Amino acid sequence: MEERRRPGYSVHREVLDEEAVDEIAKKSDSKSSLREKLKKSMRCSGPRLKSCLLGSVPVLSWLPRYSLRDNCLGDLISGISVGIMQLPQGMAYALLASVPAVFGLYSSFYPVLVYFIFGTSKHISLGTFAVLSVMVGGVTERLAPDSNFMIWDNVTNASEVDVVARDAERVKVAAAVTFVSGLFQILLGLVQFGFVVTYLSEPLVRGYTTGAAIHVIVSQLKYTFGIRPVRHSGPLSLIYTVLEICYLLPKTNIGSLVVSIVAIICLILVKELNAYLSKKLPVPIPVELLGIVIATVISWQVNLKDKYGVDVVGLIPSGLQPPVLPDASLFGQVIGDAFALAVVGYGIAISLGRIFALKYGYKVDSNQELIALGLSNSIGGVFQCFAISCSMSRSMVQESTGGKTQVAGALSAVVILFITLWIGTLFEDLPKAVLAAIIYVNLQGMMKQFMDIRVLWRSNKVDMLIWVATFILTLLLNPDLGLAAAIGFSMLTVIFRTQLPKYSKLGQVPDTDIYRPLEDYDELKQVPGILIFRSSATLYFANAEMYQEALGEKSGIDITKLLSAKKKLEAKRKRHEKKNAKKAAKRSAANLEGGPERDGQNEIAIIEMDAEPDPSLPRAIILDLSPVNFLDTVAVKTLRSIRRDYGEVCIEVVLAGCSNNLQTAGFFNDKVTKSCLFSTVHDAVLHCQSAQKHSPHEVTNGDLRPVNTLCEV
Amino acid sequence: MEERRRPGYSVHREVLDEEAVDEIAKKSDSKSSLREKLKKSMRCSGPRLKSCLLGSVPVLSWLPRYSLRDNCLGDLISGISVGIMQLPQGMAYALLASVPAVFGLYSSFYPVLVYFIFGTSKHISLGTFAVLSVMVGGVTERLAPDSNFMIWDNVTNASEVDVVARDAERVKVAAAVTFVSGLFQILLGLVQFGFVVTYLSEPLVRGYTTGAAIHVIVSQLKYTFGIRPVRHSGPLSLIYTVLEICYLLPKTNIGSLVVSIVAIICLILVKELNAYLSKKLPVPIPVELLGIVIATVISWQVNLKDKYGVDVVGLIPSGLQPPVLPDASLFGQVIGDAFALAVVGYGIAISLGRIFALKYGYKVDSNQELIALGLSNSIGGVFQCFAISCSMSRSMVQESTGGKTQVAGALSAVVILFITLWIGTLFEDLPKAVLAAIIYVNLQGMMKQFMDIRVLWRSNKVDMLIWVATFILTLLLNPDLGLAAAIGFSMLTVIFRTQLPKYSKLGQVPDTDIYRPLEDYDELKQVPGILIFRSSATLYFANAEMYQEALGEKSGIDITKLLSAKKKLEAKRKRHEKKNAKKAAKRSAANLEGGPERDGQNEIAIIEMDAEPDPSLPRAIILDLSPVNFLDTVAVKTLRSIRRDYGEVCIEVVLAGCSNNLQTAGFFNDKVTKSCLFSTVHDAVLHCQSAQKHSPHEVTNGDLRPVNTLCEV
Repeated sequence: MEERRRPGYSVHREVLDEEAVDEIAKKSDSKSSLREKLKKSMRCSGPRLKSCLLGSVPVLSWLPRYSLRDNCLGDLISGISVGIMQLPQGMAYALLASVPAVFGLYSSFYPVLVYFIFGTSKHISLGTFAVLSVMVGGVTERLAPDSNFMIWDNVTNASEVDVVARDAERVKVAAAVTFVSGLFQILLGLVQFGFVVTYLSEPLVRGYTTGAAIHVIVSQLKYTFGIRPVRHSGPLSLIYTVLEICYLLPKTNIGSLVVSIVAIICLILVKELNAYLSKKLPVPIPVELLGIVIATVISWQVNLKDKYGVDVVGLIPSGLQPPVLPDASLFGQVIGDAFALAVVGYGIAISLGRIFALKYGYKVDSNQELIALGLSNSIGGVFQCFAISCSMSRSMVQESTGGKTQVAGALSAVVILFITLWIGTLFEDLPKAVLAAIIYVNLQGMMKQFMDIRVLWRSNKVDMLIWVATFILTLLLNPDLGLAAAIGFSMLTVIFRTQLPKYSKLGQVPDTDIYRPLEDYDELKQVPGILIFRSSATLYFANAEMYQEALGEKSGIDITKLLSAKKKLEAKRKRHEKKNAKKAAKRSAANLEGGPERDGQNEIAIIEMDAEPDPSLPRAIILDLSPVNFLDTVAVKTLRSIRRDYGEVCIEVVLAGCSNNLQTAGFFNDKVTKSCLFSTVHDAVLHCQSAQKHSPHEVTNGDLRPVNTLCEV
Repeated sequence: MEERRRPGYSVHREVLDEEAVDEIAKKSDSKSSLREKLKKSMRCSGPRLKSCLLGSVPVLSWLPRYSLRDNCLGDLISGISVGIMQLPQGMAYALLASVPAVFGLYSSFYPVLVYFIFGTSKHISLGTFAVLSVMVGGVTERLAPDSNFMIWDNVTNASEVDVVARDAERVKVAAAVTFVSGLFQILLGLVQFGFVVTYLSEPLVRGYTTGAAIHVIVSQLKYTFGIRPVRHSGPLSLIYTVLEICYLLPKTNIGSLVVSIVAIICLILVKELNAYLSKKLPVPIPVELLGIVIATVISWQVNLKDKYGVDVVGLIPSGLQPPVLPDASLFGQVIGDAFALAVVGYGIAISLGRIFALKYGYKVDSNQELIALGLSNSIGGVFQCFAISCSMSRSMVQESTGGKTQVAGALSAVVILFITLWIGTLFEDLPKAVLAAIIYVNLQGMMKQFMDIRVLWRSNKVDMLIWVATFILTLLLNPDLGLAAAIGFSMLTVIFRTQLPKYSKLGQVPDTDIYRPLEDYDELKQVPGILIFRSSATLYFANAEMYQEALGEKSGIDITKLLSAKKKLEAKRKRHEKKNAKKAAKRSAANLEGGPERDGQNEIAIIEMDAEPDPSLPRAIILDLSPVNFLDTVAVKTLRSIRRDYGEVCIEVVLAGCSNNLQTAGFFNDKVTKSCLFSTVHDAVLHCQSAQKHSPHEVTNGDLRPVNTLCEV
């Protein structure tokens, strides 16, 4: 294509203002009324009802068509792989949520089954997720802090925490917040609010997850070092916690630290090996499972707990627990956190779901996803799970090991059920430091997101600002408040972006009808006597004043000065006229002949000398409104006042490129008709040039020199 | 002009893509660096210093050039008229601020003198203002409520308020909040934050002042009815107060009510007379002054206070009071209110100032105004004034009675000084109900703003929404919080406006290069085989997804379906190819001759039958990006993925009308060059048509029918 000659562009037509365009293209008036639109959307019918049912319970539509031959093997391998990953992750993330490890297993089971029935994404692996877990942890430790469960030991004269009572309370809190967040999600899904996720732009989500990852890491340092810092909550708690940990570092438990370091190094090495062999292995090495099995065996054999004081997972009850309705009295205290959990969980799940949907060519229904997640969370809450979403790493494994449908997820749940029922108790000797190591290694991907800053710095500074601001806000204000602040900030950037536009004078690309900003190109032709002005942003209340100022600056016309000069001139002229009239009256009264008229003319000539027409000033102004998205009343008034003010000093102002908005905004009236509005800048230029040729002020040498003598109003 | 034949529009050129435009117009690379810009703005020189000084103390620049002959008489008459108005208004608004009447006189004196020195507007009348006064009243009554000053009367066994101590405390609070608000204004002015006022769009200001006027009226009802309701504060306090007043209505003091009704009727009648005679009278009748003089005389003669229990102004100390530094311990408690006062006061003053500046052709410097108001308030605070701004009604009088410069304001201050020093004490018998009546009548103008709703309903529904929301928020949340909420709301409307754009297919206006939305016109020509798509709003993170969906809907192309069909097809083809290769290998191994190639071709032909090319689908898509103001990374990714996805099913996507943003946003790379970007939609259309003519898929009958057979990737 490159070497082919470009096709020609030829247009012959009259210069068309908006009136003419309306005439030629027959502007239509009819608009369907709001009531009709409502009626249309409310219609109900049999097929509609059926599709609605299938839409709400997707399993009904895809399971009957499930092809065993095509999908079964892939789903089976994938399900088992993911189940094996869920086990260590579930236990690790339970630490984050500050509840006993077994509840992480529950959270990897019930919600996954529910999602199997209601979910629409075939590839995401639902279950525990680091960011949500640490948010749940914030709530549980705030509402059930250690200090509430102190028991005085009479023998040692020291106080100790009643771990059993504390953990029971924490599980209750976690279940309550999860249940409420599920209700929020269902509610948002029912009112079709899936679109709120659009506020979670990619830089925001990535900055947020990176910030949350730092929270996760800091919350796990205590297990790595085997220390017991006091829990801080509220804004800036991260900084207090870090300071506290630094202060406690001398008390590090060497056993825990050694276990951590060994575990981290092994995990990273095997993960690298996995990545290196990814093409050759059908299923990746279950590195985390191997890690906890080996660690448990060593811990049990060496008796790490008693010999070196290494903190271990402890009692894991086997079997499931009966459902319990969450404690409604807690709902009031967790409502804010629940909302944050609902939004974050949904945001993560839908963005991952969309990636896979795009890759495999199916559709993820954002509102149905909300409902599915909501049901998973609220039913999970009844079974004492904590809030879930989907995990990036597990979803990648689910997809890469051949998982093709939600069946893989269901199978992983079965694997977890099996472990919970029979072999969970075997892991009682697992050091918590190993679980912390698993968490660190899983956060590798999020840490890599710091590279975003460099990429965004090059491509889009505002998005980089959003990333960094979100990250910092999340660090300082914790994941819940931080998210709200970050969304607020990213909204403000939209305002600022439209509020600080670039104002340009346009020039003509030689021999074309294309106009571009003069400062961007070197060989543009400035149209003599005509100023073409464009703002890069829409014109509305927050930048209307700047628009006027920039126009004055670019045009070099000090409109207030010109107007006041004109006012003075008029006053003078009137006085002179009065004087002359008096003189004339006197003379005619005295019956003198000749002279008086010429006398008066002289004086007016003197006055006109004052006006000093400046040849460098434009005689017409074209406002290119093509970037205007909507017009509010302030914008309309601004445009009107520009037209009026410049009109008073004889500069014609015409508009170009703003087709539909002006009419509905009430810009036109008897005086201002559509004939001042043109489709393209070139139309407007041709119009102005033709008007200047026909104007009485024209300078005869053919040059379109602007004339700024003051005109009659 | 109307009947003149329209000039012709002829363009002959090649179709130009962005590369070609850059080449012709020589895109320039050089940008002045940030450092250079900073250097330029920081340069310091003699003349610059002088203009800076004159800018900060405007009186130095205009007073030496003051023309006695031109301005003196007008300023004198205007100054006296305004001073006469300031007297009753100052006393009345002192009631609003819950401080003794004399402090209203102080507030009409000191700040006015300060503004004379530092202000840039020649026509606004600084001084007490109802909305600010009621806001100050909210603070004073919150921090110094009646309940803090109860003294137990042993004789009657009832408690009573220690009025003197209470009023002293209230004056201290008012002075403190005024002082702090002045500091805020100075600070904002110094950091050149005058632009914040741009957030106060006209519908917002009008809705706000109307809402505040309701607060003012409600706060004055107690004087009208002669009752003593308990003060409520915080959100919804207006409703509680109204309920309380209704509850207390049976206890109405008939004397106060009669005085109020008579005063209101007289004031309205004389005001109407004033308006009717406005052309004939050189100076309007000082209706308010007459009102308070007559009311005072009657009250004193009839002894309204003792005979009928009518509440009167009471002790007015004559003379001025020494300056007192405000109580710094109060600053912390009033900081929020002070900020609200600073913003509202400035917003009102600057919008009025601008109106007059426009009318008389001079300039009001928004940052200098902020500093002038700040100095007025902070110096006023030292002299125990309460917060001031400018009043619409007084400014109108100042202008209409011939005031030409700030001298008029200074003269009005002198009048107030005279009254304060010598005749203020005469007004001690003035009933407060009369002052309340003056306030009501002055609020007429604001009540008329309710008509805005009807006007805005017709011209701009979103602005009407802003008006109504601001009004309601102000009513419910009180003027301080209400303003913040209203500004937040009006920002959100910007987001919503860009988030709910109108998506259109464009058609060609017959025989032109102009393209318009198909739904707006009846006789547009749809370009065969090409979809031209435009969104009315800028494309950014909050609507990027909707943009893709709308594009799919308008084009009728289910891109996910097509993509998955393509994937299946490819898989099938690969399988077949493998099979064929195997067969061929077998056959060649068995040394069989003939046939195998044709066999394979047949199968591929069968596969291609599946693709079902739909002739109604477009073969090229043009995205008109002219309304795009800025591009964030989400928008760039969206455009890229649209190009990639549609490209995979052989639909070319080209862009039109987005000149500069794409490059800086990093849209272009080795694969995506500027040759897919065109200046105008027509260029893009011509390019697509030419490309289709040369494409191998072309249907031979000359019709540009789209062909959707799947292409190789």
